[in-house]
Amino acid sequence: MPNPKNSKWFLDYLSPDEGHMHGILTTLYSKKTQFQQMEIMTTGSYGRCLVLDNKMQSSEVDEFIYHEILVHPAMLMHPDPKKVFIVGGGEGATLREVLRHKTVERCLMVDIDEEVVKMSKELLPEYHAGAFDDSRTELKFMDARRCLEESDEKWDVIIIDISEPVEEGPAYLLYTREFYELVTERLTDEGAIALQAGTTAVGRLLNLSAVHKTLEQVFPMVVTMPANIPSFGLPWGFALASKKTDPRKLTAKDVDDMISKRVAGELKYYDGATHLGSMHLPKHVRKAIEAQERIIEDNAPIYTYN
Amino acid sequence: MPNPKNSKWFLDYLSPDEGHMHGILTTLYSKKTQFQQMEIMTTGSYGRCLVLDNKMQSSEVDEFIYHEILVHPAMLMHPDPKKVFIVGGGEGATLREVLRHKTVERCLMVDIDEEVVKMSKELLPEYHAGAFDDSRTELKFMDARRCLEESDEKWDVIIIDISEPVEEGPAYLLYTREFYELVTERLTDEGAIALQAGTTAVGRLLNLSAVHKTLEQVFPMVVTMPANIPSFGLPWGFALASKKTDPRKLTAKDVDDMISKRVAGELKYYDGATHLGSMHLPKHVRKAIEAQERIIEDNAPIYTYN
Amino acid sequence: MPNPKNSKWFLDYLSPDEGHMHGILTTLYSKKTQFQQMEIMTTGSYGRCLVLDNKMQSSEVDEFIYHEILVHPAMLMHPDPKKVFIVGGGEGATLREVLRHKTVERCLMVDIDEEVVKMSKELLPEYHAGAFDDSRTELKFMDARRCLEESDEKWDVIIIDISEPVEEGPAYLLYTREFYELVTERLTDEGAIALQAGTTAVGRLLNLSAVHKTLEQVFPMVVTMPANIPSFGLPWGFALASKKTDPRKLTAKDVDDMISKRVAGELKYYDGATHLGSMHLPKHVRKAIEAQERIIEDNAPIYTYN
Amino acid sequence: MPNPKNSKWFLDYLSPDEGHMHGILTTLYSKKTQFQQMEIMTTGSYGRCLVLDNKMQSSEVDEFIYHEILVHPAMLMHPDPKKVFIVGGGEGATLREVLRHKTVERCLMVDIDEEVVKMSKELLPEYHAGAFDDSRTELKFMDARRCLEESDEKWDVIIIDISEPVEEGPAYLLYTREFYELVTERLTDEGAIALQAGTTAVGRLLNLSAVHKTLEQVFPMVVTMPANIPSFGLPWGFALASKKTDPRKLTAKDVDDMISKRVAGELKYYDGATHLGSMHLPKHVRKAIEAQERIIEDNAPIYTYN
Repeated sequence: MPNPKNSKWFLDYLSPDEGHMHGILTTLYSKKTQFQQMEIMTTGSYGRCLVLDNKMQSSEVDEFIYHEILVHPAMLMHPDPKKVFIVGGGEGATLREVLRHKTVERCLMVDIDEEVVKMSKELLPEYHAGAFDDSRTELKFMDARRCLEESDEKWDVIIIDISEPVEEGPAYLLYTREFYELVTERLTDEGAIALQAGTTAVGRLLNLSAVHKTLEQVFPMVVTMPANIPSFGLPWGFALASKKTDPRKLTAKDVDDMISKRVAGELKYYDGATHLGSMHLPKHVRKAIEAQERIIEDNAPIYTYN
Repeated sequence: MPNPKNSKWFLDYLSPDEGHMHGILTTLYSKKTQFQQMEIMTTGSYGRCLVLDNKMQSSEVDEFIYHEILVHPAMLMHPDPKKVFIVGGGEGATLREVLRHKTVERCLMVDIDEEVVKMSKELLPEYHAGAFDDSRTELKFMDARRCLEESDEKWDVIIIDISEPVEEGPAYLLYTREFYELVTERLTDEGAIALQAGTTAVGRLLNLSAVHKTLEQVFPMVVTMPANIPSFGLPWGFALASKKTDPRKLTAKDVDDMISKRVAGELKYYDGATHLGSMHLPKHVRKAIEAQERIIEDNAPIYTYN
Repeated sequence: MPNPKNSKWFLDYLSPDEGHMHGILTTLYSKKTQFQQMEIMTTGSYGRCLVLDNKMQSSEVDEFIYHEILVHPAMLMHPDPKKVFIVGGGEGATLREVLRHKTVERCLMVDIDEEVVKMSKELLPEYHAGAFDDSRTELKFMDARRCLEESDEKWDVIIIDISEPVEEGPAYLLYTREFYELVTERLTDEGAIALQAGTTAVGRLLNLSAVHKTLEQVFPMVVTMPANIPSFGLPWGFALASKKTDPRKLTAKDVDDMISKRVAGELKYYDGATHLGSMHLPKHVRKAIEAQERIIEDNAPIYTYN
Repeated sequence: MPNPKNSKWFLDYLSPDEGHMHGILTTLYSKKTQFQQMEIMTTGSYGRCLVLDNKMQSSEVDEFIYHEILVHPAMLMHPDPKKVFIVGGGEGATLREVLRHKTVERCLMVDIDEEVVKMSKELLPEYHAGAFDDSRTELKFMDARRCLEESDEKWDVIIIDISEPVEEGPAYLLYTREFYELVTERLTDEGAIALQAGTTAVGRLLNLSAVHKTLEQVFPMVVTMPANIPSFGLPWGFALASKKTDPRKLTAKDVDDMISKRVAGELKYYDGATHLGSMHLPKHVRKAIEAQERIIEDNAPIYTYN
């Protein structure tokens, strides 16, 4: 059953004893940037994919799941989000989803790696779908944490779209209590944030549960939402935190109504029913979060895959 | 990061261009039985695993997810399930979950492959946990469809725990309209059934959606529930069908109350909140089911991985 | 021990049940040309490699073995080779070795795939080492067999440097009795030819032995020389055929003297002692050649890997 | 082209960036013995194989190459070998080849791992072919070096048939100058030894060249012979050392005559012509040996794959 034409494989190691194999049709770009190893490749099952530091970031076939669950619940937490800040988000697909919201007047996206944005712009047009050229968009290439520190501008929604915290990688200081404290200071009173929190796989819940508990140090409302991006090879979770609104109180109709009023175009993954499903983690994941006592801090970070 | 001690890998191909790799620590059993290629192996990430025809069937680490979502929702559909029929279920873990229900007086498990049951009994003790020795258990080794045809005995719940429909494999005639019609005739008036329906991965929804639509030809109530078994390498779905009860009407409290009254021991995956999450497929999966027109029939079966 | 930084692998399948894995550092070029799938990649163990139709053709680290054993024995068969014809040879390394011979006045290289030559020129400079710019070099992009048919020009040495005979691939009609008959007509009286003849691995000797026997239909002297190119993953053989000279009669000193007189620069693989080793295949390979009755013909070609 | 039935693969890593993949049909035995990880498996391309510490030791299809080149040249160095000592040799195939020599009256085989011999006896009958039951055979299970130290019995030929020197593995102290000094003391005046010396692959010649140079500290005559065992995935070399006889002086006829007089049955790999081929390493391997200055000593061992 393996494709005899497939002799090049991307092995996405999920643990020392486990991996997900993607047959590579063509490698469109491969380079060590200043910050990370980067590849854009076409795989047989998932189309064009962005791979950073040997980990699948997103694929043409299922990036809509990742980007819709990351963006829309957070946007709906705020009654009228006008200003949005994106941490990372190199492919431009998070930006694309944010800009669907008609209320948005300004979206600042800050990615540390200009090379990723440049190549995504050229090679992943279906991802950004022109979002980089939208007049509401502003791009900066710098450390997003420093960017938030240096200005006291406030934002209605902050979307954190970064890779997993890897030792010496560019992201691990964007998962700490200190960073979330900074984020909450830069949010308006009804503000909300969202981020990918790692896998929900049995026995590998350290990162997801510690992110949840760390967010609870800072935000009154934290929900971790299950979502499955098949190309990741493992089930996944996304954290949603807000200063005021509780997404668990919304009915399917509430969500559907808000979407039809505020969002342009049709969503593929997220709607009222998906929202309800997203509010319930399986029992063993909830138990693991409850039991977690680890708070992630600048001087005690967590590295995935160590 | 791959484990240098791992030089033996089980490659579970999910498509010609995709696979999930499991580092094999030891192979405990490997044999071509009369019906299928069978392996019991210990993998680094998932402990002892049963592999049939080169596909992961269940693993020590996450089989509880598979077996709880397969068994308990169906059991709760019936107000007082006394007689349960299991189609397949070689490892004995489905039997284990059924027997937790205090109402059960008799459970007949019919698996075509005696070798699988015999070796699971010996090498997978945590899976069956003594269920094969329970006085309520009856085992038969034959084709389950023929077994149901030959007797008109009725059952309160029928759990179909079989591998995917593979060409010339032992299971494909247990996914057809004709088989489900037979099943419904053998169910009591408040009866229910459940089965694994295949992956929910984007673009690979033929089997799951056709199973759903085929069940709707026969049952008034059909729900497909998402559930993720990490060792499978892709997100998964389970179909639940009943003659009367609608699980979507149950609150979390209803489910928690029924579990605490009717089920012995503590469940790890399934409870009221998990139930609510299980009632909502993502939008794109619902759309694919709605759009599906294919009905699976004896003379027009579906084969996965063709 | 596997390199944790290696998540991209080229799997060079040697049979349905065997392969050689190369960790890919970067893919420099990947394209489906008019004739074949082509990649130039840097692997961790072998540097820059040329891969055609998913098979390793040559690597920076060990191409000197392949090209020296292919070129020099054949060149030494002729007392004064002035005109050399290369069939294939896209990387330019065969050309490089031919041009080391001070007697050579003209070398015509005919490769069907201009794309391979163009990209090798750009990305494999150590392979050709400027040979494409030598004033004695002439390049044509067309089917080499047709080129030989269309002109009755004669050559002192013809080097056949092509990939394995794959069904519908560009090479299989360059391994037949009819082609070798054409080749011998285009050779001068003391002419010789050489080609790679496939693996010498136990039980996989069909191609090598049939090539040997087919050459014997046409040439009075045929020797198959063992040589090992590690990046190929299997031991290999090269056929040498001549109209007059018998290489088995040369002493080590004869060969060393000829090299020092006729060849510019220092060879890395081939010298008098290597020549003696090259004259002796292991017993089981000789037996397989003796037992072979298959003659390769245009209407009865052999395809490797079928 | 990969076999769709093959979902279990043995990856024999040859370097961090390179490996040879063997499709596993069945795993007959898998165990961590007191000394090493051991597997006996059937692979699609090589039949039954012995794998120790994740490295291929020998395969049904090509073990004859390994065992004939290891045993017969050394045996022919001695005019009348009556007493032979085998260091290691668990599978029993080295023993089998030694016992073909009609002059042999006693063969003592000393392997540290009784488990390997026991399971080879049961599962690899074609390897030993009854040699363990030959009345001339004596088996001991202990460290071979200690065995040679504890008795001053002398031997005509000593065959060292052990795995590569791996850190903390059972073999690395059987590759040192001190060990070879002990070996030479236990040899009769016309005695000879042989051993596998590692790969001859370009750039990976440290072990082979240092073994050669270390042997030269102790023996007046050392030859490293190329031989290719396809299942190893890389070209290989075997060292032959003697106190008196120089194998480079033998003609093909000399060897063929000795074989026909002294060896029972027909050899498959080794004969006069193979002998001549075995006397000539390629130029780059000879150069690497000449340039090597490292002597392997007890307190400065070499570990392969570090």
